[in-house]
This record gives sequence, structure tokens and C-alpha cells, in this order.
Amino acid sequence: MHEAGLKLDLIAFDADDTLWHSEGLYRGAEAKFKQLLTANGVTSVDPIMHDIEIRNLRYYGYGIKGFILSLIESAIELTGGAITGSDIGKMLDWAKEMQTAPVELFDQARETVASLAAAYPLMLITKGDLLDQEAKLARSGLAQHFRYVEIISEKTEESYTSILARYHIRPQRFLMVGNSLKSDILPVVALGGCAVHIPAHLLWEHESADPPEGEHRRYLEIDHLGLLPGAIEHLSRQQG
Amino acid sequence: MHEAGLKLDLIAFDADDTLWHSEGLYRGAEAKFKQLLTANGVTSVDPIMHDIEIRNLRYYGYGIKGFILSLIESAIELTGGAITGSDIGKMLDWAKEMQTAPVELFDQARETVASLAAAYPLMLITKGDLLDQEAKLARSGLAQHFRYVEIISEKTEESYTSILARYHIRPQRFLMVGNSLKSDILPVVALGGCAVHIPAHLLWEHESADPPEGEHRRYLEIDHLGLLPGAIEHLSRQQG
Repeated sequence: MHEAGLKLDLIAFDADDTLWHSEGLYRGAEAKFKQLLTANGVTSVDPIMHDIEIRNLRYYGYGIKGFILSLIESAIELTGGAITGSDIGKMLDWAKEMQTAPVELFDQARETVASLAAAYPLMLITKGDLLDQEAKLARSGLAQHFRYVEIISEKTEESYTSILARYHIRPQRFLMVGNSLKSDILPVVALGGCAVHIPAHLLWEHESADPPEGEHRRYLEIDHLGLLPGAIEHLSRQQG
Repeated sequence: MHEAGLKLDLIAFDADDTLWHSEGLYRGAEAKFKQLLTANGVTSVDPIMHDIEIRNLRYYGYGIKGFILSLIESAIELTGGAITGSDIGKMLDWAKEMQTAPVELFDQARETVASLAAAYPLMLITKGDLLDQEAKLARSGLAQHFRYVEIISEKTEESYTSILARYHIRPQRFLMVGNSLKSDILPVVALGGCAVHIPAHLLWEHESADPPEGEHRRYLEIDHLGLLPGAIEHLSRQQG
């Protein structure tokens, strides 16, 4: 990993569903929500629930609080206002359970991050709720490996450009690791940076996208975090 | 303002209730909440509502989403679960109204920030919800004056230390402007920085504190933003 060809000044990781499990928490809450609404006589939950989640992103952004507010709105809409305060209280309990759920790291996350931190400055770049993400990083036990943490509201070319400018990093010397083609890979590759995609078992549909085309020198897909050091070495040689 | 005595490398502003009105939005929603609960036969709203808001800060942090989740929880608790889905739907409407409310600048905010931006690098340091705060800064029309923006989950000595370290600023060359003694003034003065306190008409009780003692060389209280350039000049001379 320390060969002469290396050109990277910064490696950044996405967090949710890249270093630790997250989507499962949301899916679990949605499953409980469907049970609760079924018990309230609602037969079709999914379309309205998903519509409201997406529609509310512009008000609430990403994260647990906005998600639960959207579930509450869905419950009211799906029951024509007949959902009880007590049932809505259960959703508030889910919010707090999600906020304090243990952080489950992916296999080899700890070893991979620790070994890369010895060779490169590492940054965490995550979208979502500030307090959620800070608390999860603290609970993950990985915080000491990340020299920089950037929690942003959207991952776009503009937001990556702004971060790289702030840290005086050229995109060509930057590599991003993440599970979302849309948020972690496409904008970085478009800027001229490198990216390693690690598809997650669970992906929120809102995050789906097609892989970048004709970018084989700057983009790799791998199956799990244990393969990351080799992928970084490979991409670095392509740049050298 | 450009005298030889000046020693400041960075001036930072709090945002809510320092540059623009914010607390009034929360108080307005609380007033509507009390009316709604009164219409539901609840006679005493305040103690439970305030307790739940404070207790939930550790789950939700600051900002509109957590505030509305706490109002919903209060409504459920105060009515023993009898509050209707339709009434809770009104609270969701308030959340969206608050998220999209126009940003009302304080008098002289625009002129003061613009003139200081010509002489110093300015930073916005605000706590609260990432998306809320970014959106308000964009709507405020002041974004171009701030070279840096830091949205953090709590304003403590540690969080100021971390920001100043990241930007390579010595506390002695840093000045913070804000309406909250607890969040904007005390931690900065404790670190050896300068601070200008502009008390707001409305202050959330959670933010109240006693002014720093024996720190007359590094701390000033002023009545409004128009007095800020003079206060900065005065404090700079004291440091010189």
C-alpha cells in the first residue's frame, strides 16, 4: 500500500450501510408500521408511505426524526385521521429506539479503517441528521481513525467540491468509499476523483442509480470492506 | 476598524435570534399547541410540555423536527392518548410552516455583516438541525458574507476548541457574537477568546446563564447589531 505510485491525499468513507448497518433499522420500523396500520384496518400501506417519505425530504432531510414524522403523517392520511394518539405514541418510541440503537459494524470495518488510517488521512462524509450521525460515530468506536468528519445535507458534486476546496484537496487525489452510487460514487467520479462502491444488501430505492460508464480507471465495485485496501492500491496504480 | 491594535483573525456569529428571529416561531407554535390542548380539555400544559422538550434534547437535539416530535409526545401524554390523529396532523402542518417560514433579519443585520465581512473573515457557528440552518442561511441573503459555516450539535468549550483547531485560529484572535450567554459567550471567554453578547428579546429558558465575571477586557454586552463594529473595535484595543 505504500508504493511509489500512490497519489491519494484523502480517503473518505460514507457511514450508514458502508461502515455500519442502518437501512435495516428503517425497514424494521416500516414493518412494524405496516402491522400497526393493518391492525387499524388499512390494507395498502406502501405507496402512500413511500410517497410521503420522499415528498417530505425537502422539509425534513434525511434521518430518523424526519422519517418518524413522515410515518406519523402517513398513519394520519391512511386512517383519515382516525389513528389514535396511543398508536402514534408507539411511533415516538420507535424514534427513540432507533436513535439509541447499538451501532453494528460491517465485517472487517474496524480492521480495514484502522489499517487505512495508518497510511492516509481519513474523512467521514455522511448525510443525515447531525446529532444522529455524531452519536453513531461515537458509539461505533471508529471515531479516532477519522481525522475529519463532514456531515452534510446532500451529497452532490457541489457539496463534494466545497469540502475538497475547504481542505485544499484536488479531486484527482481523493477517493470516496460508499454503498450508494447516487450519493457516494457518481458525483465524485464526475469531479475526476476515484470511488469504490460496496453495494449494501439493503438499499433505499431513493438511492439507486446506474454505475458510471467508461470510468474503469477511477471506479471499482467490491463485495466487502476487506477488499478495500487492494481496490485502493489498484486504483492508485491506474492514476500513477 | 482597521487600526494597528486589531488582533482578530476570525469573527463568528450565532444565527438564530442573533442575526434573524427564531424563538418567536417556537413560541408561536407553543401558543397554538396550548389552544389545541385547551380545546381537548387539558388545563395545565406548560410544565409537561417544557419537561418533555428538555428531556428529549438528548434524543432529538435542537431544531424544528425534534420540537414538533416533543409537542406530539406532550399531546399524547397530556390527553392520556386521547388526542386524535387529526389534531396531531395540525402539528405536522406547523412543522412544515416553521421549516419554510421567511427569515426575518434583525435591524442592521445586513449592513453590519456586510461591513464586517469587508474587514474580517466571518464564520457562522450555529447549533440545530443541519438542513434547517442551511436553508435559513440561504433564504437570509447573508450567505455570501460568511466564508465558513459550522453547524454543530452543541456549543461547548470542546466544540469551539475543535473548530478553532481545524481552522488554525488561536482563541485570543477569535471573537464570537451571539444572543446566548450559555452557548455563545461563556465557552468562548473561558477559552480566552472575545465575545459580544446581544441579548434577544425572547430567550429560551434552557439557554439562560449568568454573564462571565471579571472578564471585562474580553466580553461586552450591546443592545443591537448596529453597535457591533464599535464593540469589536473596543475589545480589539483592549487586547492590543
